[in-house]
Amino acid sequence: MRIKILIEYDGTGFAGWQRQDNANSVQETLERAIEQIINYQGKIILYGAGRTDAGVHATGQVAHFDFSSDILISRWQGNIRNLVKAINFYLIGTKVIVLNAEVVPEDFHARFSAKMRHYEYIIFNRPEASVLLNDRIWHVPRILDIHLMQRAATYFIGRHNLGAFRSAECSATKITRNISSVNVTRIGAIIAISVSAQSFLHHQVRIMVGTLKMVGDGKYNPEFIWYLLAVGDRRLAGPTAPSSGLYLRRIDYVSD
Amino acid sequence: MRIKILIEYDGTGFAGWQRQDNANSVQETLERAIEQIINYQGKIILYGAGRTDAGVHATGQVAHFDFSSDILISRWQGNIRNLVKAINFYLIGTKVIVLNAEVVPEDFHARFSAKMRHYEYIIFNRPEASVLLNDRIWHVPRILDIHLMQRAATYFIGRHNLGAFRSAECSATKITRNISSVNVTRIGAIIAISVSAQSFLHHQVRIMVGTLKMVGDGKYNPEFIWYLLAVGDRRLAGPTAPSSGLYLRRIDYVSD
Repeated sequence: MRIKILIEYDGTGFAGWQRQDNANSVQETLERAIEQIINYQGKIILYGAGRTDAGVHATGQVAHFDFSSDILISRWQGNIRNLVKAINFYLIGTKVIVLNAEVVPEDFHARFSAKMRHYEYIIFNRPEASVLLNDRIWHVPRILDIHLMQRAATYFIGRHNLGAFRSAECSATKITRNISSVNVTRIGAIIAISVSAQSFLHHQVRIMVGTLKMVGDGKYNPEFIWYLLAVGDRRLAGPTAPSSGLYLRRIDYVSD
Repeated sequence: MRIKILIEYDGTGFAGWQRQDNANSVQETLERAIEQIINYQGKIILYGAGRTDAGVHATGQVAHFDFSSDILISRWQGNIRNLVKAINFYLIGTKVIVLNAEVVPEDFHARFSAKMRHYEYIIFNRPEASVLLNDRIWHVPRILDIHLMQRAATYFIGRHNLGAFRSAECSATKITRNISSVNVTRIGAIIAISVSAQSFLHHQVRIMVGTLKMVGDGKYNPEFIWYLLAVGDRRLAGPTAPSSGLYLRRIDYVSD
């Protein structure tokens, strides 16, 4: 049977979501925990909805895997909350936790069935750093003009060539993406930038944020976003904002 | 000249605010940093407004110390922002940071001049723990009834005998305190309990929170708070909530 899980993690110590040799990944951490439940009598392969980079956090990552319904029924009378508890038991001491699990149809795919991905980026905007938030935010000491950033953000909405907003290592062949919403809000020192789209290019949100920060700093006009979307040149956009401020918040599927 | 500083710290690794032998305190960490500025040519004694316990955080602790005006003028032309930067330079790698500094009258005292202290306690209330917030909150898995807690909180307001809400080690001779406000709010899984008063007894906020949690759990009636305040028996109140959820948010002085 196919199981969909909802996952939270602190990305700080991880090389990212994706399994890789000689590095600590969220995917492998989860796979090893689930395999412990079945005493390593088989291999568990997880498919994640968003391949977050090293240092990126998630409060709503989604993944699926195939699991024996016999075990679920014989061990827990089909109560899937007990599967969540068992996985979390083997995750103790890691920075990963499973928040929920549900049985989904066999054609469900965490990555390919996703209709919308919601990311949020947190800038901590005051002269002094925060010892309470350090690995959870991007500290920007100079006060940013939120109104300029909000005006700039509106240019992103819609279908665009995002060549200026992807990393040099991005391997996507199609670089057009439809951005559904971009919102910039401030509460005290916290500037939250939320971006929703069905899919993203590599480093897209972080380059968007790095560019919006330049707008808030008065270095770029808000209209420069329009120009960047038209020209598609990565070298003209802002720097890639650090991974520590980025959160994968939610993935929407048709059935939700 | 007397300097008042505003301080943030992550209380996790500390034995508390107060200097003590063979333990890492916030007070001593700051004193050593300030002494480095003057090349240890003298001793700096800090007086803090709130003696927070081990593990308790602060985003608005206040302290004062006496500093040579000659140094401030000769080294930084009297610009006190540079003193903040210098202290923070010597605090790098610690979990303490100075947010602001100002020159105050010689009769200012961080502890005795304080007119109001504002604490906030954060309960994280959902079945699963949070790997992103673990040392910053108290995780309560069972869903609490916020309305019962809000009703219970109103009984605390005013001047009361707080014998039921102080630790066995509390050395205060006067156990009557005037509580100015108690607010309980929920945003998603976060329950924030803010308590304001001119002064507090030892563990007072944490025992108040531990008791409010029992109310939210349905174990005590809201009216039981009234009874506890009348009877003053510590053994009848709830457990002491863990220090990890407590924040010293702000101290008010007359001049503010």
